[in-house]
Amino acid sequence: MNGVGMELLRTRAALSRMFEPSDNVGLALVEAAGPHDALRVATGAVRAGEQLTRDVMDILATAGLSAPGNILSSALERWIPRVTDLAPDRDLAMIGRAGGELLIPEDSRWPEALRDLELGMPLCLWARGDLSKGIPALHQTAAVVGSRDSTGYGASVTGDIAAGLVTRGWTVVSGGAYGIDAQAHRAALATASLARIPTIAVMACGVDRYYPAGNEELLREVVRRGLLLSEVPPGSSPTRWRFLQRNRIIAALSAVTVVVEARWRSGALNTAHHAAALGREVGAVPGSVYSANSAGCHRLLRDGSAVCVTDAAEVAELGGPIGSTDDTAGSAREAPQAVHDGLTIEDMLLLDALPLRSGSPVEKLASVAGLSVPSVRAGLARLELEDLAARDGPDKWRRSRR
Amino acid sequence: MNGVGMELLRTRAALSRMFEPSDNVGLALVEAAGPHDALRVATGAVRAGEQLTRDVMDILATAGLSAPGNILSSALERWIPRVTDLAPDRDLAMIGRAGGELLIPEDSRWPEALRDLELGMPLCLWARGDLSKGIPALHQTAAVVGSRDSTGYGASVTGDIAAGLVTRGWTVVSGGAYGIDAQAHRAALATASLARIPTIAVMACGVDRYYPAGNEELLREVVRRGLLLSEVPPGSSPTRWRFLQRNRIIAALSAVTVVVEARWRSGALNTAHHAAALGREVGAVPGSVYSANSAGCHRLLRDGSAVCVTDAAEVAELGGPIGSTDDTAGSAREAPQAVHDGLTIEDMLLLDALPLRSGSPVEKLASVAGLSVPSVRAGLARLELEDLAARDGPDKWRRSRR
Repeated sequence: MNGVGMELLRTRAALSRMFEPSDNVGLALVEAAGPHDALRVATGAVRAGEQLTRDVMDILATAGLSAPGNILSSALERWIPRVTDLAPDRDLAMIGRAGGELLIPEDSRWPEALRDLELGMPLCLWARGDLSKGIPALHQTAAVVGSRDSTGYGASVTGDIAAGLVTRGWTVVSGGAYGIDAQAHRAALATASLARIPTIAVMACGVDRYYPAGNEELLREVVRRGLLLSEVPPGSSPTRWRFLQRNRIIAALSAVTVVVEARWRSGALNTAHHAAALGREVGAVPGSVYSANSAGCHRLLRDGSAVCVTDAAEVAELGGPIGSTDDTAGSAREAPQAVHDGLTIEDMLLLDALPLRSGSPVEKLASVAGLSVPSVRAGLARLELEDLAARDGPDKWRRSRR
Repeated sequence: MNGVGMELLRTRAALSRMFEPSDNVGLALVEAAGPHDALRVATGAVRAGEQLTRDVMDILATAGLSAPGNILSSALERWIPRVTDLAPDRDLAMIGRAGGELLIPEDSRWPEALRDLELGMPLCLWARGDLSKGIPALHQTAAVVGSRDSTGYGASVTGDIAAGLVTRGWTVVSGGAYGIDAQAHRAALATASLARIPTIAVMACGVDRYYPAGNEELLREVVRRGLLLSEVPPGSSPTRWRFLQRNRIIAALSAVTVVVEARWRSGALNTAHHAAALGREVGAVPGSVYSANSAGCHRLLRDGSAVCVTDAAEVAELGGPIGSTDDTAGSAREAPQAVHDGLTIEDMLLLDALPLRSGSPVEKLASVAGLSVPSVRAGLARLELEDLAARDGPDKWRRSRR
């Protein structure tokens, strides 16, 4: 249990069925009263006193979420219909049978990175998979997300980036969807080292479900060798709201969120916006201006929400500590030096003035290059040393035929 | 002559053969002594007095270009070899025979935008082509530049952007080179309206030469319907130095410089850096991360030197007055609205809770959606109005089969 009592697990399990993700009033109630009393208030077992109501309002106001009226009593109205659905023991038994666990903020294994969500931090995480290594720390984790209807180009870049990240010891987080998400998980699994978790899928439904159905085999493999996480309890369906809120968890777990392909409107942009709001780095992969699947990426680049990234090294650099660079990146990038690289301006002028075939006298070179005669003589000596200039008769010079 | 005397033309013509482009000492001398006396000093006809020497040093220091020693006397050493080459009357006659003119800063047609180059402003512009409409103002001018070895993708984007700019009344400036440059000129000429100059080619050699040879027909057409400009006099060869300096003129003439394709090291990046140094806007076109011809563009995007641009509308917006947008851009971009767009969070939760087939009672909907019973009733009324929810028996609801 990692120092966590059974009662606290039961309480948070129940709260996660009671409250939709990011139900701010519910989360403020938990913050004000603690999980146990919050559940008693939410189920109507006890009435919230004036002090608690004020505390909840204050917490919401501090988070910039104040609303008119008695926000707690209208929240109670939406919670009450779910009281009869609460079954924490059944839910905990179910996750146990699936070889999973319920992670809660009081657990030492709770990912600290999620605390950056502040009031929006999930109540708990239903987890299946390899929890023995814990959830990797923020600086080793990158989200790779994008369109469901990805192109071959998108799949290819996703595979290269995800594999390159895992090679560098990073964990690839995504949403388990078709397209870019699936490709990211797949490439991470294919590149897995034994030392760490290659990939984490954060779901919008319960972790007992494999959704979408076409990704069942992939998600089973994620459970075997990575982690499947969700803030909603087993049995929950994926709804639009849960998809949108799920994205904040992907963003919060990751030092950098990379959008590989996204249409002008795309859920992946929502993840990018969550990441930016959290002060996390956001990268976008460029693509053809004619590809609708890159329009969302170009939109992020254009409005300055994302940094252009083209490979895993650049993603790792973006998500790494400030000032870090990836040695494998720069060096591979340097093009072969052109002949004039490193020349001074005077030597460049002189080199251009040198004829290719029959030599020119120094005075002619001075006029053509726009240099003094002494400068030409000094420059010719330098260029000769570099095998760029060659003598061609008495006091005549041409380019070297190297 | 546009109010410009013949003597001034002869003087600047001579100076442009004497000084290489961006010869800062020469340009400072012209600023300190005026063109006439500067030429007399540069040719050795008169000696620079102490005051003039101090003035030249001061001008260079103000421009951040101070150097140790007697910079003027070492400059004289490089100018003297060219004294015998000076032939301003021959050069002016030659440009006249070619149907061209020498434009100088004292001419009312001189492009004001070049004054932003300050000390680095060209001494003059040798011009061939249609000068009747003048050189278009900065806010109507965009540079479209890129690799010589462009890809089909680059050619295609260049054509679309250049044509789109000319359609919007802009002039496309480029360098007359193979690849992106040629494609930009070609597309601009193909889209020309009679009202303005579709395109300007700024050359690194004399405007009497068609360089590179393979672009001769294209450059002839630029002379017929656009403008061919150069700061170096007729007969001058294109040298590396002149190419690099030519780029500053392209950047200075243009409100925005767009790099369509560029390798990791590319002359087009030099133009972009000139533009950025002048405070002009820089755009870069994204492309495949696997294309070496886009690596330079991605480099500009990544280091924040350029804004991501994907079409002519975005280029025009970038180069246009601050806050201007192109109406044709946004509207074409909007994707068809998804079913949930514009719904409140509560209605989105409710919509997701509605079964597709047989209806659910209101209490069940409240529990599934996590809403109060009154909220569900109010929401159902709204969704029914929008044809998103439908009654299915007494007090039961399902999604509308629209």
